[in-house]
Amino acid sequence: MKLKYELIKNDQSARLGKLKTNYGVYETPMFMPVGTLANVKTLTPEELYEMNSAIILANTYHLWLRPGEDIVAKAGGLHKFMNYNGPILTDSGGFQVFSLARKKDIIEEGVFFKSHIDGKKLFLTPELSIQIQNKLDSDIAMSFDECIPYPASYEYAKESTERTIRWAKRGKDVHNNSNQALFGIIQGGEYEDLRKYSALETVKIDFDGYAIGGTSVGEDKQTMYKMIDYAIKYLPNDKPRYLMGVGEPIDLLEGVARGIDMFDCVLPTRLARHGNAFTRNGRINLKNLKYKEDFNPIENNCDCYTCKNYTKSYIRHLITCDEMLGGRLLSIHNIRFLIKEMEEIREAIKNGNFKEFKEQFISKYKNGD
Amino acid sequence: MKLKYELIKNDQSARLGKLKTNYGVYETPMFMPVGTLANVKTLTPEELYEMNSAIILANTYHLWLRPGEDIVAKAGGLHKFMNYNGPILTDSGGFQVFSLARKKDIIEEGVFFKSHIDGKKLFLTPELSIQIQNKLDSDIAMSFDECIPYPASYEYAKESTERTIRWAKRGKDVHNNSNQALFGIIQGGEYEDLRKYSALETVKIDFDGYAIGGTSVGEDKQTMYKMIDYAIKYLPNDKPRYLMGVGEPIDLLEGVARGIDMFDCVLPTRLARHGNAFTRNGRINLKNLKYKEDFNPIENNCDCYTCKNYTKSYIRHLITCDEMLGGRLLSIHNIRFLIKEMEEIREAIKNGNFKEFKEQFISKYKNGD
Repeated sequence: MKLKYELIKNDQSARLGKLKTNYGVYETPMFMPVGTLANVKTLTPEELYEMNSAIILANTYHLWLRPGEDIVAKAGGLHKFMNYNGPILTDSGGFQVFSLARKKDIIEEGVFFKSHIDGKKLFLTPELSIQIQNKLDSDIAMSFDECIPYPASYEYAKESTERTIRWAKRGKDVHNNSNQALFGIIQGGEYEDLRKYSALETVKIDFDGYAIGGTSVGEDKQTMYKMIDYAIKYLPNDKPRYLMGVGEPIDLLEGVARGIDMFDCVLPTRLARHGNAFTRNGRINLKNLKYKEDFNPIENNCDCYTCKNYTKSYIRHLITCDEMLGGRLLSIHNIRFLIKEMEEIREAIKNGNFKEFKEQFISKYKNGD
Repeated sequence: MKLKYELIKNDQSARLGKLKTNYGVYETPMFMPVGTLANVKTLTPEELYEMNSAIILANTYHLWLRPGEDIVAKAGGLHKFMNYNGPILTDSGGFQVFSLARKKDIIEEGVFFKSHIDGKKLFLTPELSIQIQNKLDSDIAMSFDECIPYPASYEYAKESTERTIRWAKRGKDVHNNSNQALFGIIQGGEYEDLRKYSALETVKIDFDGYAIGGTSVGEDKQTMYKMIDYAIKYLPNDKPRYLMGVGEPIDLLEGVARGIDMFDCVLPTRLARHGNAFTRNGRINLKNLKYKEDFNPIENNCDCYTCKNYTKSYIRHLITCDEMLGGRLLSIHNIRFLIKEMEEIREAIKNGNFKEFKEQFISKYKNGD
């Protein structure tokens, strides 16, 4: 079965919806934890289930290199390989075009990379990306795109956006996995007419869902919000909308307010490994001396495993000593924080008070105690 | 309550016993996982309980430096600080005399260290070690000793062994925690008369248990077994005997055969972080190419979380990519392997067939499939 989206309710532009997947029905808006290399760093599937995770991400480029899509296919697909009994979305490798390739490595046919592992020359095409994803057997495959850097000239953004649309068509033509949905990705940089053009042309190709890409690449918040606004009005109401690479607590609210259904970001796990935790009163750094004798949990009202069992003093000790358990405990808290935020967002939409919820959340998060 | 030992049954020199602790009754012989810095690296207490762990270790020297014994005491002791609801043994810092100090840094009063963290000069004495352990509030404290290097001259070993006995007396004199047992440590290097002398003198001081120290410091196996033989016959039957720093599967059997009740070692977790796993057919390295498409668990009959849920191919992928989950999954397997081995050893002693069990285990372990 391919994924099916059902819009349940609007609260202004915010949307409450349902995603039917091969692994159960999940409500949107949702936050998707990132498991680039077929694991959410330091965590087991059981820990993710306990956090009420739904879809998680994995990355086509990384799994193509290691262990290789054929190994994953032989294992019975990504779910069996990594033992995750829930829906998985695979990113196409498009973000790695942005982060690993140079402009001159991008040609009509595809993208030359130097492997980030051994420097070996690699060539990834829209067709190959989709074929790899077919083999990985994720629930949602993403079209291969170029994530345009910021800032980029209008000329470059136009050329790249048009190419991404051609790549999307090529990818769809070879897509061949009846259990896998395929999403298109809207690009266009910061330019209103290019975002509009990209949205209209990508929707014409007819995908199972639409992502807004090219955000969180160095632009300011107002520009990011505009990138969403420029495109989202041209997306169909009956398909899910996914804002790629966004996971700041406030940005989740701003995305939902604009009609986004799905988010992903490495932020909660990356921050965790550096000793940082989300709280309703803003981000804190556990390395701070003031937590040395703080025998309270990170957040008193948090329902995560970490907050139910450990103090800031203990987590600070682990982080200070580079003990991996510290990053693991903070990853649990940070991911649960974002998933819980989404649960409360959905509740607010149900109750028709999303706007009030958003304002209160942001005020507390920005101003602290 | 202080720990109480009860000898249940002998099978030749092997002993089946019970340790009554403030956290329940546990059978011996037992393997104790090492949690140097108040955590067994990468693992939570729940994961240790699931492996049927009993006592775990923590280290006085390391916790003295970070976070400091006063922080742990303010948290309510080590159990509350690290959230471990089972018995804890603290090593005295004596092994760090071996691994971090030089001979000339050891004086009658105590030992000068350079902090392994910032190079700061530190001075640890037998009294201070015990006072720190009193504050940590572990269930078993260890006397402060010098772990003699191997090889060492007879003259040096004699001088050091005599000093360790004086240190043991000084430590016992200041010990002041009615919930905490205190163990003496037998030294004497490879010398029969020194081991005998150390055992007799240490037993005279009257401890709650006795450890054999100074093994696993570079000596060959036969020398290690002799170090046990020289001392153990002088230890009382009604007190537990602990062989420090030993955790090779075959050495556990050889220790039990000589009358040892308790073992500890960093080996299972250290091997795990380097991609190695214990199996009944010997040690394997998961980095080996032959596991790339091996979709079987590490061991088919293993009851650990890792073997019930993951393949060698997946674990190899995680280890190859330096994903911490790999080391975590292997730590679970390796610790459970040793705990399971001890369970089977106890069963064999109950059944009076320890000798046969030992021979079969060693034959399989040494010869592989």
